[in-house]
Amino acid sequence: MASEEKPLVVVTCTAPVNIAVIKYWGKRDEDLVLPINSSLSVTLHQDQLKTTTTAAISKDFTEDRIWLNGREEDVGQPRLQACLREIRRLARKRRSTGDEDPPPLSLSYKVHIASVNNFPTAAGLASSAAGYACLAYALARVYGVDSDLSEVARRGSGSACRSLYGGFVEWQMGERADGKDSVARQVAPESHWPELRVLILVVSAERKLMGSTAGMQTSVETSPLLRFRAEAVVPGRMVEMTHCVRERDFQGFGRLTMKDSNQFHATCLDTFPPISYLSDISRRIVRLVHCFNAHHGQTKVAYTFDAGPNAVVFTLDDTVPEFVAAVRHCFPPESNGDKFLKGLPVRPASLSDELRAALDVDPTPGGVKYIIATQVGPGPQTLDDPHAHLLGPDGLPKPAA
Amino acid sequence: MASEEKPLVVVTCTAPVNIAVIKYWGKRDEDLVLPINSSLSVTLHQDQLKTTTTAAISKDFTEDRIWLNGREEDVGQPRLQACLREIRRLARKRRSTGDEDPPPLSLSYKVHIASVNNFPTAAGLASSAAGYACLAYALARVYGVDSDLSEVARRGSGSACRSLYGGFVEWQMGERADGKDSVARQVAPESHWPELRVLILVVSAERKLMGSTAGMQTSVETSPLLRFRAEAVVPGRMVEMTHCVRERDFQGFGRLTMKDSNQFHATCLDTFPPISYLSDISRRIVRLVHCFNAHHGQTKVAYTFDAGPNAVVFTLDDTVPEFVAAVRHCFPPESNGDKFLKGLPVRPASLSDELRAALDVDPTPGGVKYIIATQVGPGPQTLDDPHAHLLGPDGLPKPAA
Repeated sequence: MASEEKPLVVVTCTAPVNIAVIKYWGKRDEDLVLPINSSLSVTLHQDQLKTTTTAAISKDFTEDRIWLNGREEDVGQPRLQACLREIRRLARKRRSTGDEDPPPLSLSYKVHIASVNNFPTAAGLASSAAGYACLAYALARVYGVDSDLSEVARRGSGSACRSLYGGFVEWQMGERADGKDSVARQVAPESHWPELRVLILVVSAERKLMGSTAGMQTSVETSPLLRFRAEAVVPGRMVEMTHCVRERDFQGFGRLTMKDSNQFHATCLDTFPPISYLSDISRRIVRLVHCFNAHHGQTKVAYTFDAGPNAVVFTLDDTVPEFVAAVRHCFPPESNGDKFLKGLPVRPASLSDELRAALDVDPTPGGVKYIIATQVGPGPQTLDDPHAHLLGPDGLPKPAA
Repeated sequence: MASEEKPLVVVTCTAPVNIAVIKYWGKRDEDLVLPINSSLSVTLHQDQLKTTTTAAISKDFTEDRIWLNGREEDVGQPRLQACLREIRRLARKRRSTGDEDPPPLSLSYKVHIASVNNFPTAAGLASSAAGYACLAYALARVYGVDSDLSEVARRGSGSACRSLYGGFVEWQMGERADGKDSVARQVAPESHWPELRVLILVVSAERKLMGSTAGMQTSVETSPLLRFRAEAVVPGRMVEMTHCVRERDFQGFGRLTMKDSNQFHATCLDTFPPISYLSDISRRIVRLVHCFNAHHGQTKVAYTFDAGPNAVVFTLDDTVPEFVAAVRHCFPPESNGDKFLKGLPVRPASLSDELRAALDVDPTPGGVKYIIATQVGPGPQTLDDPHAHLLGPDGLPKPAA
């Protein structure tokens, strides 16, 4: 903490995006954000995708304030308020148990929060999970809380609790009405499967889609298939996916990832009125992946789609160059293509004539805007360098560099 | 029968297309074509869509032969052979029970069959149901069989048994292993709901789709949601749909029709690899229908989609002009539009400004190629006019007029 700036206490943290391979869709308690089934995700590396959040408290602040990507936002919105309430409750609880020194500053101090993403929100990548995980983590540091933060993050956005850990993470749905057992746990650390790679295929969205909060509520109310999925399908899949991750069984991991993505979108279609997050480009990517795997006679790549048309593709490092070449072939970049590939370097590769013939997909120029190549990464981090703070000594956002 | 042509016996029949509102998808017995759930359909009027089939038997024919839309086809294909075997079994059975005169011609006589559709096969309208219903009906007439033809038609194409009746028809799945109780029954005759109208929105298919036989087999093998649907969802929906039809409750009929179409496509998506029959145009039609209904505050139109991107829309006669105008607005015809509307006449209507604003759909020129306006119709018919025969006195197809 920036001791020279007292009475201002300021911390800056980063948190990752996570991608579910067993999907969360539907709450059993809207208020506490308790899910109807457990889920399992892969934490992506923060070198490519991360949220950075600075939290500062001071006796001089007269109100809670928040700035997102440089713009002040309404601090009164319910999910944010729920997170603040919950972190202060945990801090009070800790103080009252008396097993540590009391926190140096009063819990009644107001907080200033500033948060930025290193990726465009418009890309349609789920930023709320990274955002609320980072918020929970930063608030915990600034208020001196070191208990489990699942509930704080969850109150902001359900899947945010999975961004509290690196590697492979499960969110156990829990059974208790108060949600105390609805928590995130690491299944395997980020070092567990070093060959695993993640390619995010960013697709141009044709129009604004139904938000996931409203969408999942409608699904819970109207889809008979969603209830069956949650009760009868997901429990077995959680066991199977955990096993595939532990064994580093890419075939099993990939097949189950694709099946679970498809089933999630099936329950969206079974919702009334139906919800469609996949576009024709998404479906062409699905076909490309199945053609690619059929050509190789095994599951070498696997797709998953969240509440939008972007594909997240899992594969192993030795398959990345050939698959990227296949994506370029099916979705020729519209510009000269030098910004088509972001993130981890990928060495160029050419397609064999056989694979080219096997890709039974009409080329769609510009269908994929760009690819972000990344890998499994660690959980939230605290940044020690004071230059990283997004808030200045006055507790207000620093001017953008 | 054409007595003057003896020893040639020739009959010509017509049969209708049917559209399921509770969908059939998946067999419990591939060989006997027994379904995993019951289904319910609406028989469309033959003035707009029908198959015409002539069957002729003669002691002079040396082999079974078949011509479809003027082209001779392989008579050895298994489904056709199953129909022929079954009709001859029924005819033999009838003769052996001795309760009627024996048929005038030997059952060993070979048959010539000619069949045409009055609509383009390329339109992607399920022609196999009308085709096999017509085949079963014509073979029964020519071989003198008057028992239930469900099994004969079903062996050709499962849903064909529903085209054996007019009006509203259920195909009871049955429970017996031999399929004797898997039969079609009329729920209400074609005169029951005179205001009901059917609009077929023909969409340009972008590519060849997976056939329904292979598709449903893959679904049965891989989709956990399909099994649940068949066992736990469809039985209640059959009761509810029968009630809606009997009561002429359009709201209930329309909502359940849309939900069941969506659920069928959801199980296709839950299949592995996933099956997508809906295109982006199909999804725009779905959105148009929901916008139209939301604007009116009630379910005035309802869509259903089979194994392809074409929409079949149900509505009542007084809503047809406004909905057709809405379709024209969202999918402006690419030519001058004089062939956009086929079938029943529809009086022109203009859109109110309010409805135009409510149609939250980007116009897609040419997205809908044309509309066929039709209504509920009767079951198969026998044509008495000898000029209607598709086979000449020599038992070969007449030259096209």
